[in-house]
Amino acid sequence: MTNKINLNADMGESYGSYTMGNDAALLNLVGSANIACGFHAGDPTIMRETVRLARQSGVGIGAHPSFPDLNGFGRRAMAMDLPEIEGLVIYQVGALTGVASAEGMTVTHVKPHGALNNLACENMSIASAIARAVKAVSESLILLAPTGSCLYQAGLELELPTASEIFADRAYDESGNLVPRSQPGAVIHDPEKCIDNVLRLLGQGVSGDQETEDDHFQVHSVCVHGDTLNALQIAHRVRKSLQDQGFEFAGLPEVLNSQKLVSN
Amino acid sequence: MTNKINLNADMGESYGSYTMGNDAALLNLVGSANIACGFHAGDPTIMRETVRLARQSGVGIGAHPSFPDLNGFGRRAMAMDLPEIEGLVIYQVGALTGVASAEGMTVTHVKPHGALNNLACENMSIASAIARAVKAVSESLILLAPTGSCLYQAGLELELPTASEIFADRAYDESGNLVPRSQPGAVIHDPEKCIDNVLRLLGQGVSGDQETEDDHFQVHSVCVHGDTLNALQIAHRVRKSLQDQGFEFAGLPEVLNSQKLVSN
Amino acid sequence: MTNKINLNADMGESYGSYTMGNDAALLNLVGSANIACGFHAGDPTIMRETVRLARQSGVGIGAHPSFPDLNGFGRRAMAMDLPEIEGLVIYQVGALTGVASAEGMTVTHVKPHGALNNLACENMSIASAIARAVKAVSESLILLAPTGSCLYQAGLELELPTASEIFADRAYDESGNLVPRSQPGAVIHDPEKCIDNVLRLLGQGVSGDQETEDDHFQVHSVCVHGDTLNALQIAHRVRKSLQDQGFEFAGLPEVLNSQKLVSN
Amino acid sequence: MTNKINLNADMGESYGSYTMGNDAALLNLVGSANIACGFHAGDPTIMRETVRLARQSGVGIGAHPSFPDLNGFGRRAMAMDLPEIEGLVIYQVGALTGVASAEGMTVTHVKPHGALNNLACENMSIASAIARAVKAVSESLILLAPTGSCLYQAGLELELPTASEIFADRAYDESGNLVPRSQPGAVIHDPEKCIDNVLRLLGQGVSGDQETEDDHFQVHSVCVHGDTLNALQIAHRVRKSLQDQGFEFAGLPEVLNSQKLVSN
Repeated sequence: MTNKINLNADMGESYGSYTMGNDAALLNLVGSANIACGFHAGDPTIMRETVRLARQSGVGIGAHPSFPDLNGFGRRAMAMDLPEIEGLVIYQVGALTGVASAEGMTVTHVKPHGALNNLACENMSIASAIARAVKAVSESLILLAPTGSCLYQAGLELELPTASEIFADRAYDESGNLVPRSQPGAVIHDPEKCIDNVLRLLGQGVSGDQETEDDHFQVHSVCVHGDTLNALQIAHRVRKSLQDQGFEFAGLPEVLNSQKLVSN
Repeated sequence: MTNKINLNADMGESYGSYTMGNDAALLNLVGSANIACGFHAGDPTIMRETVRLARQSGVGIGAHPSFPDLNGFGRRAMAMDLPEIEGLVIYQVGALTGVASAEGMTVTHVKPHGALNNLACENMSIASAIARAVKAVSESLILLAPTGSCLYQAGLELELPTASEIFADRAYDESGNLVPRSQPGAVIHDPEKCIDNVLRLLGQGVSGDQETEDDHFQVHSVCVHGDTLNALQIAHRVRKSLQDQGFEFAGLPEVLNSQKLVSN
Repeated sequence: MTNKINLNADMGESYGSYTMGNDAALLNLVGSANIACGFHAGDPTIMRETVRLARQSGVGIGAHPSFPDLNGFGRRAMAMDLPEIEGLVIYQVGALTGVASAEGMTVTHVKPHGALNNLACENMSIASAIARAVKAVSESLILLAPTGSCLYQAGLELELPTASEIFADRAYDESGNLVPRSQPGAVIHDPEKCIDNVLRLLGQGVSGDQETEDDHFQVHSVCVHGDTLNALQIAHRVRKSLQDQGFEFAGLPEVLNSQKLVSN
Repeated sequence: MTNKINLNADMGESYGSYTMGNDAALLNLVGSANIACGFHAGDPTIMRETVRLARQSGVGIGAHPSFPDLNGFGRRAMAMDLPEIEGLVIYQVGALTGVASAEGMTVTHVKPHGALNNLACENMSIASAIARAVKAVSESLILLAPTGSCLYQAGLELELPTASEIFADRAYDESGNLVPRSQPGAVIHDPEKCIDNVLRLLGQGVSGDQETEDDHFQVHSVCVHGDTLNALQIAHRVRKSLQDQGFEFAGLPEVLNSQKLVSN
């Protein structure tokens, strides 16, 4: 039985003279970095520095494409048509690929950011457009999507390598879907409960001994945040608990491969 | 003796709802398209359409990176430091590479746009930063630079595949350098004289029978413009005259290869 | 009985090296120009040139604020919160006011552009945010809104001078509301029918002899377009027909004043 | 003899989700705030919040226009022509004027930011373009310029109300001009020496008892910074020392008026 798990976090979200995030701290915690590509945050110089730091820390890199909205940090939905969405994903993944080449790195995955990700979780057309875009750039790129989301489903349908992620501080229903923020109990504030949440979800998802196991319950990665001191502390404790439970931390490609072996 | 020659033109310079240029007409004329990458013109959707059209026309594609200045169409110099310049070239080349992958194409060359190109022709530090950026993305990318420029020299020094271009409507001195626009006679308005100019420069540059031949006289490509009806007509006549003189039109990689064979 | 009517058109929608529209032609047709303020089109230089041309043609000027989306020409809805929407209207109206001052002009009205206008027609919260923004800059600015829209209602509720406009090529139901584009017959293609449409709506709106007349039927302005040759020709014919029917063309403030006198 | 003096600082330089500066601390120290207008920093929402905070603190507000370069924070020179420079100043001053109106404030002054200010100090054409732009918006706007700079001279020549400022941490030569950063001793690091520097310059500038006094020695304002803890501490001590020396802190218009009375 495999017990490999990936931790991922958003990074490289500074811009020009503006700094944001705790990249240095997060690089010690995670196996995969989702790097902003200049549309909601990041610029060519910051992208390169972030890729370099990830390389030095042995952290895998992925593109974190967004709606073109620096002022709104990519958190405002925009009514773009599907070819436009395909185009912006392709462009941003390409840009990071160029930066990665310049630093001797390879982009391993793509995870949409903010409002684009939210829409892709609920809207199958947008999810498919993003998956098509990722596949168009390279069929070996991993699409990293929330467990049980339209985006995850779209990746599987296009036969992309597709990894599912969970959020430590969000509640999931019995089908593995996020409880919407509008419902009570959707966000978990107590760090201990965050840890219980993660362990429970991972237990369901990767144990491999359930007759009813389906792909939607597989969990390849846990998303952690570093935007507040509290978030960083929760991330540390989640990592510690997973380690105590015998999980082995790995890059996304390695986790995806190991779980494939199990399911075959 | 080789007589292969490339014609190149800038394309994909529309933006959103704004249209610019005569891409359809130019695609019938040239072997290589320099495609705007979103910093002075172009956006992901237009880049993809331009790449698709180039593929359908059998035209090779190159990145046409610029200062980040859509409002000034990349024609205003910006005081960026060298890592910033490296970064913006890497980013834009990467972005086009992603778009090209999505359309089953490969980016063959890089040619800086506007003020960035002008500075790179006269400033060795900027020229080298651009050449480093191109090489960092891929050692097989061709740097397309004006004959006799710092940029051309920088490409050779970094051992990049480096192609030199001339402008039909610009006068060159005996060393193969552009006569500055500030001097009388720098710009040639008479179409017949444009053609004579091109033929004379090509004769010097590629004949291979001159003892004194040096790299700075080699000419691999002629840059043509399509931004006015007049420019388009001159481009047509230049092409016709070159054909009459027995030149064979080819993509940049082929021209570069054929001339290497000759000089060996 | 008053028969003053205003014609308005969008202008100044070029950007940097990109040109759009037929401003010169439209300036001979209309009494009021809605000037792009840099968020979907226009830049400081083009705004100033447009204001100058309007002054020379005796055409009144208004701000045409938009979502911040040059690439989408302001036609893509963005999920901005109400203070953000207030802020962007205030900013853009202020910017045009500065440009107008520099050319000895006064901004007379504000008309939202594109997706912002569409949302403001259907969403009372957004409509009120825009009206608040206009009033915050100056209580004497006229809000120009489609007849029967939430935006028109919001202007009246805030006691802003509020003018209503109709579109020659769009069908209206019996309540004076736009027939949605999704319904058959929403767009009128036949120029003759456009003219009939305008005359019918003006007859209902400003005749003053109807028992049932209410503010929502008042029409102060007809919006004409110049983005295609056909649109320009329709605009010409609408103007000619209105003239033949005895309408007198005037600026928005004058029309608004004259109709107030009638309704009192 | 007057001893009124103004302190000014840059504010409102956050952007979207990015925060920068210590506006709250600076608002307790200065009489005038130079507010970013969205081209190098600031956005409509942040501009409005900053204006509101300034009003609550009784601090006067001025526009802080910049080259359009958010990524470079307005610190990179751009080769814009003079009408473009005029245009961008007019636009940004107008935008802030709109925001100020919405908060019941009046813009009292204009101070260029970063590279635009640097160029305006050394280049009379650019300085005059900026002064023309300010005057075009309103003849009563105060132009705030470094003492002895081309910009200060341009303001006087256009008969704008023109205020001169000094920097506590920069050395000045005997003519009142900034010692260039390239020369040794140009920047003063010792807080005590900063204070001595300010007192010496103010003594020369405003004493009114010197036969040789000329306008270039007049000092109306001291620029303080808040971007580092050290800068904030120096600002506090400069303020304390000026208070101890009997200086009275005032808004720019008041200082300018009081010094005019003295010189008459």
